[in-house]
Amino acid sequence: MDAAEFRKRGKEMVDYIADYLEKIDRRQVFPDVEPGYLRPLIPDCAPQDPENFEDVFKDIEKIIMPGVTHWHSPYFFAYFPSASSFPALLADMLCGGIGCVGFSWAASPACTELETVMLDWLGKMINLPEEFLAGKDGQGGGVIQGSASEATLVSLLAARTKTIRQVQSEKPDLTEADIMGRLVAYASDQFCATLGTTPCCSFDKLLELGPICNKENIWMHIDAAYAGSAFICPEFRHLLNGVEFADSFNFNPHKWLLVNFDCSAMWVKKRSDLTSAFKLEPLYLQHHHQESGLVTDYRHWQIPLGRRFRSLKLWFVLRMYGVTGLQEHIRKHVRLSHQFEHLVLQDERFEICAEVVLGLVCFRVKGSNELNKALLKSINEAKKIHLVPCHLREKFVLRFAICSRTVESTHVTFAWQHISQLATDLLKTWEQNHHQQ
Amino acid sequence: MDAAEFRKRGKEMVDYIADYLEKIDRRQVFPDVEPGYLRPLIPDCAPQDPENFEDVFKDIEKIIMPGVTHWHSPYFFAYFPSASSFPALLADMLCGGIGCVGFSWAASPACTELETVMLDWLGKMINLPEEFLAGKDGQGGGVIQGSASEATLVSLLAARTKTIRQVQSEKPDLTEADIMGRLVAYASDQFCATLGTTPCCSFDKLLELGPICNKENIWMHIDAAYAGSAFICPEFRHLLNGVEFADSFNFNPHKWLLVNFDCSAMWVKKRSDLTSAFKLEPLYLQHHHQESGLVTDYRHWQIPLGRRFRSLKLWFVLRMYGVTGLQEHIRKHVRLSHQFEHLVLQDERFEICAEVVLGLVCFRVKGSNELNKALLKSINEAKKIHLVPCHLREKFVLRFAICSRTVESTHVTFAWQHISQLATDLLKTWEQNHHQQ
Repeated sequence: MDAAEFRKRGKEMVDYIADYLEKIDRRQVFPDVEPGYLRPLIPDCAPQDPENFEDVFKDIEKIIMPGVTHWHSPYFFAYFPSASSFPALLADMLCGGIGCVGFSWAASPACTELETVMLDWLGKMINLPEEFLAGKDGQGGGVIQGSASEATLVSLLAARTKTIRQVQSEKPDLTEADIMGRLVAYASDQFCATLGTTPCCSFDKLLELGPICNKENIWMHIDAAYAGSAFICPEFRHLLNGVEFADSFNFNPHKWLLVNFDCSAMWVKKRSDLTSAFKLEPLYLQHHHQESGLVTDYRHWQIPLGRRFRSLKLWFVLRMYGVTGLQEHIRKHVRLSHQFEHLVLQDERFEICAEVVLGLVCFRVKGSNELNKALLKSINEAKKIHLVPCHLREKFVLRFAICSRTVESTHVTFAWQHISQLATDLLKTWEQNHHQQ
Repeated sequence: MDAAEFRKRGKEMVDYIADYLEKIDRRQVFPDVEPGYLRPLIPDCAPQDPENFEDVFKDIEKIIMPGVTHWHSPYFFAYFPSASSFPALLADMLCGGIGCVGFSWAASPACTELETVMLDWLGKMINLPEEFLAGKDGQGGGVIQGSASEATLVSLLAARTKTIRQVQSEKPDLTEADIMGRLVAYASDQFCATLGTTPCCSFDKLLELGPICNKENIWMHIDAAYAGSAFICPEFRHLLNGVEFADSFNFNPHKWLLVNFDCSAMWVKKRSDLTSAFKLEPLYLQHHHQESGLVTDYRHWQIPLGRRFRSLKLWFVLRMYGVTGLQEHIRKHVRLSHQFEHLVLQDERFEICAEVVLGLVCFRVKGSNELNKALLKSINEAKKIHLVPCHLREKFVLRFAICSRTVESTHVTFAWQHISQLATDLLKTWEQNHHQQ
């Protein structure tokens, strides 16, 4: 395929994507396929000779789409949102076109520099303490990781290296293995200090945890993967109070800030904590600006060497939505979750299981876990909407997460009526069976 | 931006990318900017109100492009190739449009299943032993990681977990920390067993290493990040002999197989080695097909939870190039590296520093390291081509890597004439200075 054909096919693909997203509500949100569906539909091995684009293109609807869970359907209420927006899609196209690998400043200066500045923009939007920003000569700064898991791992490894070195300087007789065996990582069952846990979007008390960590010289990492985006709204910013005690912080614009996956934003107060843990300097990656100390080489901030030009997505989205546009998006989702909460509360058969703070509602039918499992099963088997459950202490709970960029009040109303009807049907059978037993 | 505007802007972006790649040879391969160039060009913080697309779009040429190192320029001979092709760009657009997050089978069955089958296709293309393939009921299989670093880390962690459990079962009195302190990872200065090292594309002797690892019950991981793509050509497949001794193997189609970053293909003989090290099962990620044992949940195979639909890129590229098309691409690059090698060998002032096996030529001026550093400096300061150096034992060496998809014999000839002329100029000054001293 040459550039001329790419012009043609690329435009067809743009239309296909626009069609897909415009009419996504007409597709069944969860697919009908069974495990192993795909293998029999395609050949056993790659073709020897090139196939043409038309053949590949028509297989998208034939082979791929029947097996897709439509995360951007307004009937998708599972997990947490995965961000999607047209500005981010455009930026990702550009990222692919440029196709640079920004592991060092010299490998593509724009890739590194835009990222540093975008993480400053984003940090300011959530009013992060100045220490976390790079600015012109700060000691902190931000980086785009692939996921919150990577940000947490990077923090953990940096904390470990820092602690080992500190102990070694105090007690030079101890080996690294001696020290390793005695290191302790404190965590709840959600792991680190978390703002907006996945099961029920609960918030750790940073103002209690933070001072203890600081006093005991414990690295504090805060994960706000989902909730972090909400802190761009002043009315939710108080949830982040206490971040000033942390060493590292991250949240995922790819969840709730309309920046397509992957874009997990991570900040540290001391970038030297990361670079001294991960620094690797083979000659082929060195460049003369390193010596100046003026540049950032992001390979020292992460596990992989290679990295895409992901800050373009942030740049496009922040500019084309503006802070107010993004605030509107967050506020709409929060409003819709409260709408659902009110619908649940009006039905005496149901209960709300956790405070609704942002875009997630945890609810259940009053009754046994088995009853709630059966309700979820009937919801997901009907495939008109899609939800996933969680455990809150001993209880089996249904999670209703506002996800899609295009979800509206009517979809929430529909979802509730559907759930309510399924509950009515289920409760009838359930009571009969219960009587018979 | 709504779908209608995306149709318009997306098509403009397609044209922009096509223009960029068609005329990339007219851009200076390495940028003129100094560290910190970008920050003064853009505002201090994100705009409150939305900006329009035109304003963002015109800043690409104004702010971004002046700071881009053009990895796909035919004058780029640095590092290793970073793959780029039009079919991969189209597939990545689709991946963004679908925007699913495939951490489990249920999260998007097509995303998981296409990946498993594509890794089987790719494994067959390089004639991997059957044990590494998933097939319908194999114990092995492949996964797409973000980078070779992640594949290596995943292998290392899986090997560690496996060994700790084994030792614990034999000596239940030992704590995990006791065992950890005694574990040994054997590596060369390129880390694990490597096919195609970054400095000079050398190859470890798998047929010597493998039997020792197997006998001593040592996990063997092989990294063929760059070289692996060449194994689709029968004449290079012998370099992979001995892979049958390995537990895990990986190479990067995003380097040399025309699949845009990121796509690092990794295979294991026993998928249970990965899943038992990384398995994590909160209720909200469980689905009823898990119990059948029939499905793959790729989140157990990797560090991150989230993952993009990256197998689409492999599917598009393998089908639209065909095996023969990809073989042609590899062979052209190898031919061009030998062309450069011959040019170097004809000039008595120069020497070749490592056997030229694939697309990399290591060479230097006969003389001191300082002389070669000065030559590289003059090459990279002229900015007509771009190279990076390496150390081979004590010697400072220049690396000439065939990188771009569109590089041709004329570009290689140009590059050599340019280097040769710079060497002539340099040697004049150098000898004068030497005389004066």
